[in-house]
Amino acid sequence: MRVLVLGGDGYLGWPTAMDLSMAGHDVSVVDNFLRRTMLTEMGAGSLTPIQNLQERVKAFHEVTGLEIRSFIGDLTDPSFTDEVFRAVMPEAIVHYGEQPSAPYSMISRRHGVMTQRNNVEGTLNVIFAIRDIVPDAHLVKLGTMGEYGTPNIDIEEGFIEIEHKGRKDTLPFPKVPGSMYHLTKVHDSHNIQFASRIWGVAATDLNQGVVYGIRTDETDLDERLCTRFDYDEVFGTALNRFCVQAVIGYPLTVYGKGGQTRGFLNIIDTMQCIRLAVENPAESGEYRVFNQFTEQFSVRDLAELVQRVGADLGINVSVDRLEDPRIEAEEHYYNAAHTKLVELGLEPHLLSDEVVAHFIETVQRYKDRILLGPIAPKTRWDSR
Amino acid sequence: MRVLVLGGDGYLGWPTAMDLSMAGHDVSVVDNFLRRTMLTEMGAGSLTPIQNLQERVKAFHEVTGLEIRSFIGDLTDPSFTDEVFRAVMPEAIVHYGEQPSAPYSMISRRHGVMTQRNNVEGTLNVIFAIRDIVPDAHLVKLGTMGEYGTPNIDIEEGFIEIEHKGRKDTLPFPKVPGSMYHLTKVHDSHNIQFASRIWGVAATDLNQGVVYGIRTDETDLDERLCTRFDYDEVFGTALNRFCVQAVIGYPLTVYGKGGQTRGFLNIIDTMQCIRLAVENPAESGEYRVFNQFTEQFSVRDLAELVQRVGADLGINVSVDRLEDPRIEAEEHYYNAAHTKLVELGLEPHLLSDEVVAHFIETVQRYKDRILLGPIAPKTRWDSR
Repeated sequence: MRVLVLGGDGYLGWPTAMDLSMAGHDVSVVDNFLRRTMLTEMGAGSLTPIQNLQERVKAFHEVTGLEIRSFIGDLTDPSFTDEVFRAVMPEAIVHYGEQPSAPYSMISRRHGVMTQRNNVEGTLNVIFAIRDIVPDAHLVKLGTMGEYGTPNIDIEEGFIEIEHKGRKDTLPFPKVPGSMYHLTKVHDSHNIQFASRIWGVAATDLNQGVVYGIRTDETDLDERLCTRFDYDEVFGTALNRFCVQAVIGYPLTVYGKGGQTRGFLNIIDTMQCIRLAVENPAESGEYRVFNQFTEQFSVRDLAELVQRVGADLGINVSVDRLEDPRIEAEEHYYNAAHTKLVELGLEPHLLSDEVVAHFIETVQRYKDRILLGPIAPKTRWDSR
Repeated sequence: MRVLVLGGDGYLGWPTAMDLSMAGHDVSVVDNFLRRTMLTEMGAGSLTPIQNLQERVKAFHEVTGLEIRSFIGDLTDPSFTDEVFRAVMPEAIVHYGEQPSAPYSMISRRHGVMTQRNNVEGTLNVIFAIRDIVPDAHLVKLGTMGEYGTPNIDIEEGFIEIEHKGRKDTLPFPKVPGSMYHLTKVHDSHNIQFASRIWGVAATDLNQGVVYGIRTDETDLDERLCTRFDYDEVFGTALNRFCVQAVIGYPLTVYGKGGQTRGFLNIIDTMQCIRLAVENPAESGEYRVFNQFTEQFSVRDLAELVQRVGADLGINVSVDRLEDPRIEAEEHYYNAAHTKLVELGLEPHLLSDEVVAHFIETVQRYKDRILLGPIAPKTRWDSR
């Protein structure tokens, strides 16, 4: 299948491009290196020694004999987006091409408005390119579990049947997103659902949980193929950050009570989920939503896990309970459905002590690359 | 109270500015004349002979002795928006300043993306200006009943209590908007609700029905104070269009079966609702939603009403059932709550034969200004 991976230079985009290529698909990637630019702005960088996209593609070809085409440009530019779609004529589009950080979107007004413009307009241009150039293509869009917020009822996969005053309907699950970034994913979801209903676009919206891990089958082939790994307060996610903090003897930064519960998954399972979605496409006019995670943990659970595994490895890990810089519930009910990808064939790689131990050892290998500056939380939801 | 009316040159913005000024408020208006520009693009124009904003303000001063300040500029420019907020230091902001037409947003990709950028970014800039410059001000934002779509359950005012698998929560009412324009209002609602939750912004989101009518107490004072009145297929709303069609002997353009049911209200009641919202503000951190309409009608009901009243006035009105250019349910359940504004004191002016007769007579006065070109529906939801 001809697959276009948008944001194909990113943490998940690059491994996804390699994974789909190894699986026999004809893969092209698009990126404007926004992630690299933002990390530079933050004075942070990848733990792993990532190559630039051109070197990655070359190394992948050397190692596997496979070709990945790359296009450098910005999806918010409609003429660039159209050009890429005309050149590739994709049958599936895997869309990671957005500003992915909640804290980044909350730094200032400029960061918030930029995030909304970048994400919403880029996705609109993708929708219109599908409608006008490849109407039969399947859009696989990365959303986030954070779109739902933390309602006091069970979270379903995209839709909920509501009985109200003696009548019934199945409607989009109500969303209470928690940052300017999360809001963009909610806007995207509404825009894509509309495109499916009105123009018949086939779409899968993957509400992904927090991804951890660094190794996939392909990144293991050659160090030049490694993916980026961010551990700073803006782009690092909970477990990734904790493992780095453990390795450098920095107390784990737990925000508030640490009862914030979210869905998590191993990067290996992200690869699986994308492949399942691409190879089992939505139908024309269908807008389907999968919750893409394998397990739920609270931040406290994760900190304890890293502490325990650290002790086994002879590392003394302490925990620092910091005032929560975000405005969010620190203790809450959380129970989210996630059966649809399993029904398609997902075989979860669950988080075990061994996985964490292996993860910590990988981090140790790159220990001398860790920058201490950007680790402590500075971005506050109530800052101006 | 110092009130800033955004979009204060528009169909509702201008009468609102005058109404609030007459009620003793210190009113300033902002506009970039986008509506006038778009009408020029469509080859259409106002039925009524509207003056430019500077002439309106001058005439209003001559007639009433009252001052309305005006600021000309674009809310998507953050420095302009901040400048206005610093100059006025408003206590209430009435926000009509958006691209208001569903058909316009569906003309082409460019129109759709422009509508999303204009509406969402302008409103974000307003939110940030409130947060940073007048944090105690009250945002009165015009949304639309069209945000809800036509669910098979009763529509509530913004929120719904959901019981699900033995648990309960009150969550935002799920939205299924029907155009690129309606989507922007849904995006705004999420963004504003977030601003209330995170930054304590006091906000009232008015999900307004379809407004009809042309006369308010203030427009009646002097012909130079009249408001615009659009009857073309892009900017004209159902009843307004029908009355113009009746007067010129053009068959009423009913789309499809005509069972499309919506909430409607008289422009006089819009004035009342805005005043009630402004003078009974939301509290800091409160995000409240009022459904702003007084009665429900189907398009068929309205066509029959105009036909009947036309006959009484000696006008022979025919009805043309056209293929629906929109993608929407032509027959559906519709029952929407609208009690909160009544509880605040709204006294509805219901649609009667007399109201329609008076309305048709007003249209007759301007009959020689009617342009025939832009009346027939051309904008299709499935056009490319």
